[in-house]
Amino acid sequence: MMKEKNSVGIVKPQIFVCKNPLQLDSGVMLNEYELTYETYGKLNTKRDNAVLVCHALSGNHHLAGRYSNQDKHPGWWDSLIGPNKPLDTNKFFVIGVNNLGGSHGSTGPKSINPKTKKAWGSKFPIVTIQDWVNSQNELIKFLGISQLAGVLGGSLGGMQAMQWSIQYPDKLKHSIVIAAAPNLTAQNIAFNQVARQAIVTDSDFNKGDYYKSGVTPRAGLRIARMLGHITYLSDDVMGAKFGRRIKNSNYQYNLDTEFEIESYLNYQGDKFANEFDANTYIRMTKALDYYDPTKGNKKKLSTVFKGIQSKFLIISFTSDWRFSPKRSREIVKALLDNNINVSYAELTASSGHDAFLMSDEKYHNILRSYFQRMLGAK
Amino acid sequence: MMKEKNSVGIVKPQIFVCKNPLQLDSGVMLNEYELTYETYGKLNTKRDNAVLVCHALSGNHHLAGRYSNQDKHPGWWDSLIGPNKPLDTNKFFVIGVNNLGGSHGSTGPKSINPKTKKAWGSKFPIVTIQDWVNSQNELIKFLGISQLAGVLGGSLGGMQAMQWSIQYPDKLKHSIVIAAAPNLTAQNIAFNQVARQAIVTDSDFNKGDYYKSGVTPRAGLRIARMLGHITYLSDDVMGAKFGRRIKNSNYQYNLDTEFEIESYLNYQGDKFANEFDANTYIRMTKALDYYDPTKGNKKKLSTVFKGIQSKFLIISFTSDWRFSPKRSREIVKALLDNNINVSYAELTASSGHDAFLMSDEKYHNILRSYFQRMLGAK
Repeated sequence: MMKEKNSVGIVKPQIFVCKNPLQLDSGVMLNEYELTYETYGKLNTKRDNAVLVCHALSGNHHLAGRYSNQDKHPGWWDSLIGPNKPLDTNKFFVIGVNNLGGSHGSTGPKSINPKTKKAWGSKFPIVTIQDWVNSQNELIKFLGISQLAGVLGGSLGGMQAMQWSIQYPDKLKHSIVIAAAPNLTAQNIAFNQVARQAIVTDSDFNKGDYYKSGVTPRAGLRIARMLGHITYLSDDVMGAKFGRRIKNSNYQYNLDTEFEIESYLNYQGDKFANEFDANTYIRMTKALDYYDPTKGNKKKLSTVFKGIQSKFLIISFTSDWRFSPKRSREIVKALLDNNINVSYAELTASSGHDAFLMSDEKYHNILRSYFQRMLGAK
Repeated sequence: MMKEKNSVGIVKPQIFVCKNPLQLDSGVMLNEYELTYETYGKLNTKRDNAVLVCHALSGNHHLAGRYSNQDKHPGWWDSLIGPNKPLDTNKFFVIGVNNLGGSHGSTGPKSINPKTKKAWGSKFPIVTIQDWVNSQNELIKFLGISQLAGVLGGSLGGMQAMQWSIQYPDKLKHSIVIAAAPNLTAQNIAFNQVARQAIVTDSDFNKGDYYKSGVTPRAGLRIARMLGHITYLSDDVMGAKFGRRIKNSNYQYNLDTEFEIESYLNYQGDKFANEFDANTYIRMTKALDYYDPTKGNKKKLSTVFKGIQSKFLIISFTSDWRFSPKRSREIVKALLDNNINVSYAELTASSGHDAFLMSDEKYHNILRSYFQRMLGAK
């Protein structure tokens, strides 16, 4: 393989073993856990150029680069992260971490529970965004960083970036929150519930203890992913990409796949069901559902934001109906209520929620110039 | 039970046995079939006061009234149909019919196939809206009606009302098309596909031949219905009805039902899975997917509408994101291109697609006055 332009190149995940017990929101105490992470670029001598990138529902620590020269797929945010890319690894030390409860190396449902010597399975606790931020903070401390230049994330990752500012106000300078929301709406929760129910009512789920059987709840996880995909795309972009195009020259009038959009969803569902862990999927959606810094409107968001010390960049996309611009504006408004320095961009985009993963020029330029200003402001 | 005001009272379904073979779009020939139907009001001596009401995905022939004094639930459009109601049974002869492929008495997958003496199951053909209109026309002939005063329907029912005007232009005076669309978008098909895949990948589905086992693909059908419900409601009305309200005073941090919206969906899914037939559900969604009078844009909608003789009332609802007002306007535009008499109302409503089943006063007044004018115009 030719050397890629502006790529971080071949990367290798590392494991951080944390022996500090972690008190989870659920009440469970995790005595010890592992976090799998990757870093790109170099931590400078002042140790003030670190950016933590938090992943969304199906993401992981592998943000950029490849694992070998033969590796077909780079990390999930490779378009953004690399030398001379918007998040420039010549200047920043970038950290990706697989969240607790994940299935890409960090301690999660398929890990061995040291107490029982068996996979956690159904016994793995529910984890929250607050728990993740606490565990990420342990990793940051381990890496010798006392203050992050920034925390960045899209979707569920954006919620973590926001929560960092609330939970550790003096530990980051910038919070970059993309395609996110201050909490889920009833409709958001509803979609998550259908996805979860598809998994838990799959007869192969066995209440979450399926690792031993060697059979996974593929059918349910597949449905969950297919449904997810609908909500990641806009109606318009689906129309433009697939419309009513059929696979054959005429209708077949049977139960086989008739339309191209059906093939696409089947493919996405199959692929995901082969790769992802159902127990993790359930926990990621639960973390989304539970997240609500206002604690059920007991506090106003602007009150929650009172102690924030970081600056903010908020980005939303016009066609995102999962986390619409309206939801981002709620965050902006509550920040402004506190006179917090916030930049906000509401970008015209056709691709829906997925726009945060795309390389739209205007979008990337906004991020590039924000990161450049972050360096200048030091 | 007290006599209900403006109710059609106790009603009884009837069966029409059609011995005229029906050539289906799929190529299959049905030699004989039954349609279950109900009628309300009286056919006048001129036989020109009949209104056919077509049902949507999960509907049936039971439009109004009750089956006994103990019957808790009236027909699904009881709010609209009855003496002195918007569709006034003192004046109109109203016909409800369960569509072919249905599971409420008409010939469908759970009926006995006369050739094999077993339930049709997987062998029951795919049926289309065109097939339904043909079979409904047989019923109308049997009832001695040569021209309908109108055909009325919402959602999938509205598509049938529209198709009647295309297929039998001289057999109806008015087509009343509510919360419908000229065809499904890629997103609409995508939701149907996820619902169908939830059913067909349920291990109890057995390719559609599950009647003998006594076990039905409940889990899959339940997921399909839960998903459907999300698309029937608007984000706003879900927010207003359920918001982020939780069932207990605090988060439980387990996989049990946490939010009220989850309970609601579980309840709707369970109820439906106990009552409805999965093979029918699949066929109803396929009929939706296949419907496209433009035949994949081979003809323009305005060209398809060329021979239409009936007048139209089209109604859409602002918060309906399943069949948005934009889609109704496509129908209106194509009718206007042909100088067809069309009334169009785009109603402000918060309840999404389900608004067509609600008794909003403005909505019902529009229907009432349209039906009154239909009588005056004779």
